[in-house]
Formats: sequence, structure tokens, C-alpha cells
Amino acid sequence: MRRALDAAAEAALAGEVPVGAALVWRGEIVAVAANSPRALCDPTAHAEMRVIRAAAAALGRDRLEDAELWVTLEPCAMCAGAIAHARIARLYYGASDPKGGAVEHGPLLFAQPTLHHRPEIYGGIGESEAADLLRTFFRLRR
Amino acid sequence: MRRALDAAAEAALAGEVPVGAALVWRGEIVAVAANSPRALCDPTAHAEMRVIRAAAAALGRDRLEDAELWVTLEPCAMCAGAIAHARIARLYYGASDPKGGAVEHGPLLFAQPTLHHRPEIYGGIGESEAADLLRTFFRLRR
Repeated sequence: MRRALDAAAEAALAGEVPVGAALVWRGEIVAVAANSPRALCDPTAHAEMRVIRAAAAALGRDRLEDAELWVTLEPCAMCAGAIAHARIARLYYGASDPKGGAVEHGPLLFAQPTLHHRPEIYGGIGESEAADLLRTFFRLRR
Repeated sequence: MRRALDAAAEAALAGEVPVGAALVWRGEIVAVAANSPRALCDPTAHAEMRVIRAAAAALGRDRLEDAELWVTLEPCAMCAGAIAHARIARLYYGASDPKGGAVEHGPLLFAQPTLHHRPEIYGGIGESEAADLLRTFFRLRR
């Protein structure tokens, strides 16, 4: 989570909503990324999507059954869906997100009976630092 | 939708679940893509994600407010989330998907009060051809 939090802080400096993620495959960090939709001109470039895509490309596989995904904010519906498609084994996240979150809020995606894969889920990890980054970012922009 | 259906047929020939999409920006088709998670080693490489990313990159913007997205199958939660993030104006889809769909099934994503953007939605367009492609693909693989 340290690496994910550092990536989130870098996102803030770049003017992007500060969210970071890291993907661990069999005990090794194989991808770290920050939320970067503006810089990349890519509305799908959330931190989770970027580490999943980078890890899948690096490992040469489209399913990451042995992966842990660490992210500083509760994933949205897009990212939660991608986590399911990628068959991520464990999801660790920091701050919860009542507005955009889809894990413990809104569509409660992993509780949907139609979902084909559900990771183990651990929330609140590094929560205060992750939430501070977001609060500071939005306060400075108002 | 013709271009999206042709892309879906190409996906089937490549051994991928046959779904295709096209993105129209101000009356012009700017991206066409097939579902390709296996070939690209990318679990997020659904047809909708690919046309959104390609169009955003081509247009140099991360929001596609004047876009229409045409796709042969009801979008899943990941793709529906991406459609909201990209601020797509209108969504046209073919076959409905009781198992993986997130528009008229499962999480009913665009009906969630927390969702920040909701396109106009038109289902059932080119439905029989889209569904035939999927049925034939899965029958041949069993």
C-alpha cells in the first residue's frame, strides 16, 4: 500500500484525482500506477485499470488468478468489473468512496449474484493517508 | 451497428467471444473494435473499452460528450462504468445479456442514484444477428 499511496501523491502533483494502485503477483510488485485520465486522454485510466493492464501485459496472460490488487480508494463499478474479469484473488483498498464506490456503496458489485468472480476484500488499509490526499486535493481546487 | 456486427464476426474467427463496437463522434465513425482480451493479454479489452480508449486518444480528450457508442451486446459493469466516465451521450446495443449485462440486468448500473452520468439508452438494435453470432460461437466451442 506504501507504493500505491506514493503513486496517489504523484497523481495529485500532476493535477489528477489522487488515487494510486499496485499489483502484486506471487509476492512481487509487478505494476504500480496512478490515476491519469487527463494526462493520458483516457477516461478508463484509473489506477486499478492501469495496473491490471500493465500486469497482464507483463505476465502475458489475461487472467491474474494469483494477484493481489492494492488501491488507495474503494473501486468504482468500472474497476470492480475489471477486477472480476481479471480474476484478481485479493483486493485491498484504503478510503471508502460513498459517491463513486461500487464495493460497499452504490451497485455493491461484488454482492451481485450474476458476478462470475469475487475476490477476497479488505477495506480501510492506509485509509487515513489515502483520504487525506483526496481531501487536500479537492480543498486546494475549490 | 453494421460495423460493430462485422467486428464481432471477426472476433469469433479469432477465437474471442464475438462482440464488436463502434464509436461515432459528431456523425463520424472514429473507432471500431472487437472484443480481444485473449489476443491482447488484457482482461479489460472488451469492444466498448477499446473504442472508448481509441476515440479518446484520437480526439485528444478524456470526455466524449458528443459520442454515440454502438455495441452488439448489453455492456457489463466495467464497460457501463467506462461509458459513464467517458460521458457518452447515447448508447445503442444489440443483444441483451442476462448473465453479464449491467444495463437491464444485475447491478442496473445506469439506474444507480450515485452514478454521475447516464447516457440515452436504446437496446435491441441488430439484436438477432448479434445473438446469432454469440450462440453459434458458444455452440461450436462446446
